[in-house]
Amino acid sequence: MGRVNIDVLEFYYTIILQNVDKLAFLLVSFVKIFVNFVVKIFYHKGHKGLHKEHKVYGVAWYILKLVSGITEKTFQEWIFMLNQVMMEELRWKKFPVLDDGFVCLVDVMGNDAAITQAARVSYGEGTRHVSDDRTLLRYLMRHQHTTPFEMAEIKFLVRVPMDCWRQWIRHRTASVNEYSTRYSLAIDSMQKTSPDAWRLQAVSNRQGSDGFLDPEVGRALTDEETMFHENARSLYAGRIDQGVAREQARKDLPLSTYTEAYWKMDLHNLFHFLALRMEPNAQQEIVEYATTIGRQIVRPLFPLAWEAFEDYCLFSMKLSRLEQEVVARLAARGQLPATLEQFMEAQDESWRNLERCRERDECMEKLSRMNLLR
Amino acid sequence: MGRVNIDVLEFYYTIILQNVDKLAFLLVSFVKIFVNFVVKIFYHKGHKGLHKEHKVYGVAWYILKLVSGITEKTFQEWIFMLNQVMMEELRWKKFPVLDDGFVCLVDVMGNDAAITQAARVSYGEGTRHVSDDRTLLRYLMRHQHTTPFEMAEIKFLVRVPMDCWRQWIRHRTASVNEYSTRYSLAIDSMQKTSPDAWRLQAVSNRQGSDGFLDPEVGRALTDEETMFHENARSLYAGRIDQGVAREQARKDLPLSTYTEAYWKMDLHNLFHFLALRMEPNAQQEIVEYATTIGRQIVRPLFPLAWEAFEDYCLFSMKLSRLEQEVVARLAARGQLPATLEQFMEAQDESWRNLERCRERDECMEKLSRMNLLR
Amino acid sequence: MGRVNIDVLEFYYTIILQNVDKLAFLLVSFVKIFVNFVVKIFYHKGHKGLHKEHKVYGVAWYILKLVSGITEKTFQEWIFMLNQVMMEELRWKKFPVLDDGFVCLVDVMGNDAAITQAARVSYGEGTRHVSDDRTLLRYLMRHQHTTPFEMAEIKFLVRVPMDCWRQWIRHRTASVNEYSTRYSLAIDSMQKTSPDAWRLQAVSNRQGSDGFLDPEVGRALTDEETMFHENARSLYAGRIDQGVAREQARKDLPLSTYTEAYWKMDLHNLFHFLALRMEPNAQQEIVEYATTIGRQIVRPLFPLAWEAFEDYCLFSMKLSRLEQEVVARLAARGQLPATLEQFMEAQDESWRNLERCRERDECMEKLSRMNLLR
Amino acid sequence: MGRVNIDVLEFYYTIILQNVDKLAFLLVSFVKIFVNFVVKIFYHKGHKGLHKEHKVYGVAWYILKLVSGITEKTFQEWIFMLNQVMMEELRWKKFPVLDDGFVCLVDVMGNDAAITQAARVSYGEGTRHVSDDRTLLRYLMRHQHTTPFEMAEIKFLVRVPMDCWRQWIRHRTASVNEYSTRYSLAIDSMQKTSPDAWRLQAVSNRQGSDGFLDPEVGRALTDEETMFHENARSLYAGRIDQGVAREQARKDLPLSTYTEAYWKMDLHNLFHFLALRMEPNAQQEIVEYATTIGRQIVRPLFPLAWEAFEDYCLFSMKLSRLEQEVVARLAARGQLPATLEQFMEAQDESWRNLERCRERDECMEKLSRMNLLR
Repeated sequence: MGRVNIDVLEFYYTIILQNVDKLAFLLVSFVKIFVNFVVKIFYHKGHKGLHKEHKVYGVAWYILKLVSGITEKTFQEWIFMLNQVMMEELRWKKFPVLDDGFVCLVDVMGNDAAITQAARVSYGEGTRHVSDDRTLLRYLMRHQHTTPFEMAEIKFLVRVPMDCWRQWIRHRTASVNEYSTRYSLAIDSMQKTSPDAWRLQAVSNRQGSDGFLDPEVGRALTDEETMFHENARSLYAGRIDQGVAREQARKDLPLSTYTEAYWKMDLHNLFHFLALRMEPNAQQEIVEYATTIGRQIVRPLFPLAWEAFEDYCLFSMKLSRLEQEVVARLAARGQLPATLEQFMEAQDESWRNLERCRERDECMEKLSRMNLLR
Repeated sequence: MGRVNIDVLEFYYTIILQNVDKLAFLLVSFVKIFVNFVVKIFYHKGHKGLHKEHKVYGVAWYILKLVSGITEKTFQEWIFMLNQVMMEELRWKKFPVLDDGFVCLVDVMGNDAAITQAARVSYGEGTRHVSDDRTLLRYLMRHQHTTPFEMAEIKFLVRVPMDCWRQWIRHRTASVNEYSTRYSLAIDSMQKTSPDAWRLQAVSNRQGSDGFLDPEVGRALTDEETMFHENARSLYAGRIDQGVAREQARKDLPLSTYTEAYWKMDLHNLFHFLALRMEPNAQQEIVEYATTIGRQIVRPLFPLAWEAFEDYCLFSMKLSRLEQEVVARLAARGQLPATLEQFMEAQDESWRNLERCRERDECMEKLSRMNLLR
Repeated sequence: MGRVNIDVLEFYYTIILQNVDKLAFLLVSFVKIFVNFVVKIFYHKGHKGLHKEHKVYGVAWYILKLVSGITEKTFQEWIFMLNQVMMEELRWKKFPVLDDGFVCLVDVMGNDAAITQAARVSYGEGTRHVSDDRTLLRYLMRHQHTTPFEMAEIKFLVRVPMDCWRQWIRHRTASVNEYSTRYSLAIDSMQKTSPDAWRLQAVSNRQGSDGFLDPEVGRALTDEETMFHENARSLYAGRIDQGVAREQARKDLPLSTYTEAYWKMDLHNLFHFLALRMEPNAQQEIVEYATTIGRQIVRPLFPLAWEAFEDYCLFSMKLSRLEQEVVARLAARGQLPATLEQFMEAQDESWRNLERCRERDECMEKLSRMNLLR
Repeated sequence: MGRVNIDVLEFYYTIILQNVDKLAFLLVSFVKIFVNFVVKIFYHKGHKGLHKEHKVYGVAWYILKLVSGITEKTFQEWIFMLNQVMMEELRWKKFPVLDDGFVCLVDVMGNDAAITQAARVSYGEGTRHVSDDRTLLRYLMRHQHTTPFEMAEIKFLVRVPMDCWRQWIRHRTASVNEYSTRYSLAIDSMQKTSPDAWRLQAVSNRQGSDGFLDPEVGRALTDEETMFHENARSLYAGRIDQGVAREQARKDLPLSTYTEAYWKMDLHNLFHFLALRMEPNAQQEIVEYATTIGRQIVRPLFPLAWEAFEDYCLFSMKLSRLEQEVVARLAARGQLPATLEQFMEAQDESWRNLERCRERDECMEKLSRMNLLR
């Protein structure tokens, strides 16, 4: 907003303070500052610092509860207002992803409170006194009572290379309106790769990538890519110039061509999308989109639900029946943390005779993460 | 925003700050009055008068466009505000249905403009100059381009007898959180029938009702109903008192027992629900719920979409291939409007030898509605 | 089954047992011939001849009923067998589409009888005597009782250019497993366009095509296309050779590259897909796929459901409230068939002052199809 | 079929044995015996014995592979035939549940091989040599690659009390045709409770039950129930006799009234249903239905998928981020298995100050199951 004349500000404050009814304005300002404060914390700290933040958030929550006075109604109005401000902060703000993509919040229905509100209709009056909102919300997430999370809805505008969009669209529970290259000329932008960003085929994992090509080699690939894009573009333009129907002219556009879409779904299904696409095994491009959506938009809008999502879903670990039995055997033998030999001794019978066994590898990896393997 | 003369700004702020509360009040009042005006028109006129209303609505729309000045942005902000006010008017207002049921708007995402906004991403810049919002929206509805209607979302709280709810819940595209009689005591209310409201089994239509029983007979049925409800209630209460688990005690509750639920879905799917449940052949109880939802809540929130829904869906007529051929034959013979004999002569071959033929009856009924049968 | 003479039974068993293998062969052959006969009729006649076929089909149906003897059970077993044979005829048979695509039936659950079987559970015993299968099935389709059609399920294997697949996959109610170019090398085939198959951009319809380019011009475009495909292929191969991860190497594949997928959904949703994609306004490529699926596979598998689908859905006509009123006005004035002037006089008020009006054009087009406009 | 003359049978066998081409019959008999053998094992052993069975199954699998000779095609045909026989064994067989309910298989599309068949299209040729069917199928389940499991489809006919059906129908991904009490008279059967089957309200878990009422008290409740059912039935019958429409007469039927429905969905969604409804916290009635469906029908039809479902889903354990950290802390301190004090010392900070903490209880329960708590 730039610099503001000090005198004007003073005058401004004087006027406000002379008028009791102008407190509304102050109130909103306070909420904005407060929200910015919360958002800042959420933004600028990684996962490690989360615990501390949640305390801060908890304190803020508590203050709000105090401020809001006695009735629950008033408190919820406060939360609602806070959420509105947060939403207005975020709406239409384009978060850049890849070289020319973005995600941007268009609209949101509901907040953390809307989730518990819906849950309480199931659990009835009986449970109200037992649990406060955060506890209830965490209980719902932990026990996969997913329907209350469907009560919040989010709409985005996204710009994504078609290649990535082909994976994205496989999630069928969303509503979608995509830019149509039958009606309009294709968006004149294709995803580019910088010389140091060419990824090597993973050996261990047939579907993934692992490490990068030498930037010297990458340079040649990038040059080829640039030429090919120009080529593709001029082919498309040429067809259009000749009068070829747009629906046919587009048939040879590279998958790297950007498209845009409105994309809307409920929070439960969004969490499902994020859990699958923020995973390390997902393709890097879609991981970047999912991470931006999750951390930049969902997190500030639904701080409690997000926290629960991380604790019970994103960073959870699933132990199969076989893996539980391995741990139980090792524990019964007093061999935890176990040596490799002890682990091999206690492994599942069906793995024992296999030289290579993916399931065993996964089990070892999980046990290591919990310090159960030396 | 560019540079602004400081003096002008100061003057501007002073005026605003001195009168901010009055201005806000004026603004909101104006919008409220305006909205009420629009809503009133929509409410208190039947289908016949719709045409006139739409002119009025068109005028209002036009005034708004003038008021909002030049830029589209500002206009959409106006519409958004108007929608907010309308929503606030409607939120949590309980519209009574049946003897003890209700429907009530909890939240809404989007408005008429959100539908066309999403459509425009498909159709791209190219079509913007061609069509204004209403025309585009009607085009979408007419040609079953349904995805933009998914971009609006509505959430209700409803109170419904379980009998009716069993039909309701068959629509699978909604999100639902229902009052749980495992967690809480069942709602102490059952749908009652007044002596003059007992319906006779329809003869023509195996699944429907037709006319009413004699109120004298109805009196006896109503008395029996009252006794049975008391009976059922005391059975339930007795089990609970004995310590029977709520999940089991409820097993003999009558289907007439009321339940409550949050019910949320997108506008496309809501229209689908309304089209099926506002139909004369649907059961009277659910027709009342659907009609209340449609006319009291959806109509004022989405006036343009509602109008299109009525014109192209609710009051549309589908002619089968066979029926089109009948009309075409009659027209070719210059026999429109046709006599019964002419119709029988022109009927489909597959109907001719049947004494009773439901499909032929339906065809005659449709042609009559268009004055094509004398 | 009633009493049967023992001697006859013995004789019957003896004969059967002596020739069991030949009998089985004869039986299957008979069914095959019979089915082929039915299928042939369905295949080789266009829409015009449909009426006659249905008579033939009706006769065949009747013969089957005679052959099957008295009990309904036995008749259904016959139908089931017939359906099995038909399915075996069709399974894994690749119906070619475009230059290098195909559709192919993998599996099917249910048949016409499975649809009515499910419907009867709704309608209960009460309706059984009223309607035979065909009548019931047509009633269901006509009145949009769609759930019984969900009781049949079909699975295909398809090979489609990615461009076309992008439209296809927007139908969210199917289960899909697509060939993964993260795991495997991309299929080495791209959709080619012959010199006389380049379509012109439609003027009237922004999203369509209309007519063809001069084959001389087309020749040049086809040559360019061939070169571009080689180019694209060598770019891809080059990246793979350099060790670039498949998931990244694929990023510039043209949309014309073929992909393959298992695609499975229920009959109701398949009909919805076909209704939208067999429509003249859909893009030619997907129309070809939809038509092949519909006429070559669904039609022989579900002859009764397909007939009903054509009569009440594919070739049906929807009249809006406004259009019905236009017809009713013209009929009331005794002006049917109407002249253009009479039509313009009777048109909807909201169209009257518009010079160009798409909705009016659509109305005229519909009335013409029924001979209601001179 | 009644008694058969012994001589005829002898003759019958003679004829068969004289003809090489009758081997087909023998073959089928062999498969039937073999399948029965496998099924028997699966049926009559509990979870404990599963490991052994799988070996047996593995052996059978191996033999089949040998028998089927060299080509994969032939092997799959074998599996297909085996599956057909199994399906025919199960079709229309009513497995009783509760006092008057049942579940019964109507149709099935696909088998274990159909799941991997679809998966291979994703993974392409590249992976074929790596993994055999069982390994691939287990990998898919373990890593939640759920789409291949959607490629199998199952249809049931079920008879369920409406109370239980109300929970059941909340799973929205199935296709349903339910018995209609608008069209037909309500089924004359209500779920009865024997004197020793009245469950006590659970104290710890607001939504569950725990233990049983004294059978003496239960006797009185059962008598009341019987009277109430008679009452309800005569109320309904009386209304029908008076000519009340069925759709209205039914309004006071007790929730315990049985209904019937066709219920169809894909294997992935069925597994989701079973995982939620075979869980100990689900209501006993639906647990019985889910268990019957799972163990009596799904297990023999999809032995490999079922095994994977049990190992990686039904009997899996999810550790939250917090729980993993507790284990990791205890392991790092060399305190595994831990005493209660050590656990309390290592617990999550957010639990420490709470006297009662459900999440902590759950953590302790999980650690105990793996012998990690003394």
